[in-house]
Amino acid sequence: MSEVDNNLTWHAHHVTKHARKKFHKQYPAIIWLTGLSGSGKSSIANALDVLLFEANHNTFLLDGDNVRQGLNKDLGFSDADRVENIRRIGEVSKLFCDSGALVITAFISPFIEDRALVRALVEKDEFVEVFVDTSLEVCENRDPKGLYKKARSGEIPNFSGISSPYEAPKNAEIVVKTENKTEQECAQEIVDYLRKEGYLDA
Amino acid sequence: MSEVDNNLTWHAHHVTKHARKKFHKQYPAIIWLTGLSGSGKSSIANALDVLLFEANHNTFLLDGDNVRQGLNKDLGFSDADRVENIRRIGEVSKLFCDSGALVITAFISPFIEDRALVRALVEKDEFVEVFVDTSLEVCENRDPKGLYKKARSGEIPNFSGISSPYEAPKNAEIVVKTENKTEQECAQEIVDYLRKEGYLDA
Repeated sequence: MSEVDNNLTWHAHHVTKHARKKFHKQYPAIIWLTGLSGSGKSSIANALDVLLFEANHNTFLLDGDNVRQGLNKDLGFSDADRVENIRRIGEVSKLFCDSGALVITAFISPFIEDRALVRALVEKDEFVEVFVDTSLEVCENRDPKGLYKKARSGEIPNFSGISSPYEAPKNAEIVVKTENKTEQECAQEIVDYLRKEGYLDA
Repeated sequence: MSEVDNNLTWHAHHVTKHARKKFHKQYPAIIWLTGLSGSGKSSIANALDVLLFEANHNTFLLDGDNVRQGLNKDLGFSDADRVENIRRIGEVSKLFCDSGALVITAFISPFIEDRALVRALVEKDEFVEVFVDTSLEVCENRDPKGLYKKARSGEIPNFSGISSPYEAPKNAEIVVKTENKTEQECAQEIVDYLRKEGYLDA
């Protein structure tokens, strides 16, 4: 291979984002679930993942189970570490979006500013904010992992909604009220929105 | 929804890794290209991405272009930051692998230990190490970004192969010699390996 050939042929091709979108027959986006601990984010996210996957969509789910033990295992729960936690999740979500996936995230992500930073990473329409709107009272009654009890006793500091603020979205694309619905019904509301807005056929 | 219903129906389903593998009709893996700066990693990675994508495979490419400006923009080039850089890329690659993708990475990743840590993150056969084996002399002659010149003058410290070690793989799954081949020929060798080993039909 001569130097000239080298210049002509190397770095010639890339798979474009547009090509990936067409390949996966969908409009890739970050479907960002935010809400208090116990609000139902993870359950709804999983149900949504199943609904979309069974409808032949290329999906992926990011949640505490696959992020906190891996990419973000070096981070604690200080304010700075919480910001960095969400920043990294946002960047990884953007990569999945660029890969052509509908990526679903389920993190408390309590601060408006942090969620706005993620929204700003991607194109308009690529960030779909879903407020899982379950009252603190209901979340605390559910307390599936006993975390609220520990937060009230002071065993867990900086707990969103108790000893640290939870800033609800003001302009979320979707607000899901969970208190009189199954997880499937909540997930179906999100699917209905995605279909109506054209995310599911591109 | 009663408390009993809640316990029964929430957290019921997940999309399994096995289901994603079947959906994408391939055996997901991390195809990890390592080699000196200028060795041809990025060009071969892009050519490989195009070849696989055009053969209807779900792929994604991680390289300096989409990682250093995003997820890892807080990292510099100190030893500690280089280790963290590769650790995060490894964790993100694992997430893509779990999503069912064939994920291709193109980073110098000069240290055997760091690459071994990535290999240990995933299952056996999910890590395919590709040594892009171009001699330092040839890389330095190519010097497409003028980095070797800056490294030799001391303007860039800790440059792999010049002022910092590059530890070549001892047991890479694939060794690609680039010096008398086009990027397409090098990429095709990797495709041939993947096909032979069963990654392209699952």
